[in-house]
Amino acid sequence: MECSYCQKLKSYGYGDFIAETEYWVIFLAPNQSNLGTCVIALKRHYGKLSGLKPEEWSDFSKIVDRLEYALKKAFDVTMFNWGCLLNSFYLEDQPNPHLHWHFIPRYTHKVHFEGIVFEDPYFGYMRPRPVKNVSTKLRKKIIAKIKENLK
Amino acid sequence: MECSYCQKLKSYGYGDFIAETEYWVIFLAPNQSNLGTCVIALKRHYGKLSGLKPEEWSDFSKIVDRLEYALKKAFDVTMFNWGCLLNSFYLEDQPNPHLHWHFIPRYTHKVHFEGIVFEDPYFGYMRPRPVKNVSTKLRKKIIAKIKENLK
Repeated sequence: MECSYCQKLKSYGYGDFIAETEYWVIFLAPNQSNLGTCVIALKRHYGKLSGLKPEEWSDFSKIVDRLEYALKKAFDVTMFNWGCLLNSFYLEDQPNPHLHWHFIPRYTHKVHFEGIVFEDPYFGYMRPRPVKNVSTKLRKKIIAKIKENLK
Repeated sequence: MECSYCQKLKSYGYGDFIAETEYWVIFLAPNQSNLGTCVIALKRHYGKLSGLKPEEWSDFSKIVDRLEYALKKAFDVTMFNWGCLLNSFYLEDQPNPHLHWHFIPRYTHKVHFEGIVFEDPYFGYMRPRPVKNVSTKLRKKIIAKIKENLK
């Protein structure tokens, strides 16, 4: 069952619900060009990294540990990129940012999952990639595989 | 005076020493295309975000608060990007990453500082920019301005 915040958070287009903690919600990001890419959004509406509360940092640090472990187990990820950017909110006339993190698994190798091949051609670099179209069914399987490894 | 770790950390090319805390060192990044861009490096040699100790997270969270405050005061920054990427280490045959954060101030407006104009033409987006050549003298003035506002 999804938390009460998810409907609101969904309006930001962060993706599909995977799990929640006391202060954060983990989503499977819309763009799966890098398999397992997630968005981790703060439950309360707050728009910058400074001023985040100690308990929110502490909770986030545990998510970092759990997600890196789970994704490595699930898809043999090589390493991870983390980013708190918030740029797109500032393209609006009246920016009203909502704090969230980008979690991007990076791969030295191809990953075959459910008959689809995922690649990371810019491994070692940060370059935007076009959205990889992944069916709803496959997104559910990616989420299930992550949850299976999420301790 | 620089800490004993800085000489080693300097070999990674993180930039010029600004300040240190118990667990982290703050450098002025080599590339100042976005004025005030910093690198925050962990003092111990460790290569990923998962497994970072609670006291290291807590110390980092205070740096986030202090740096966002200081840069806003110093250069009227609009908002900030934070990233823990570690990509370039993985271009080596034997990756031996050293944990560090990128702190990138973003501006809706031009900033005039010591006779130089700094711009952020891709505000609202994450796009790599070529290195902006800044003299050693100017780098020292940028550092002094940041330190003046670093509480």
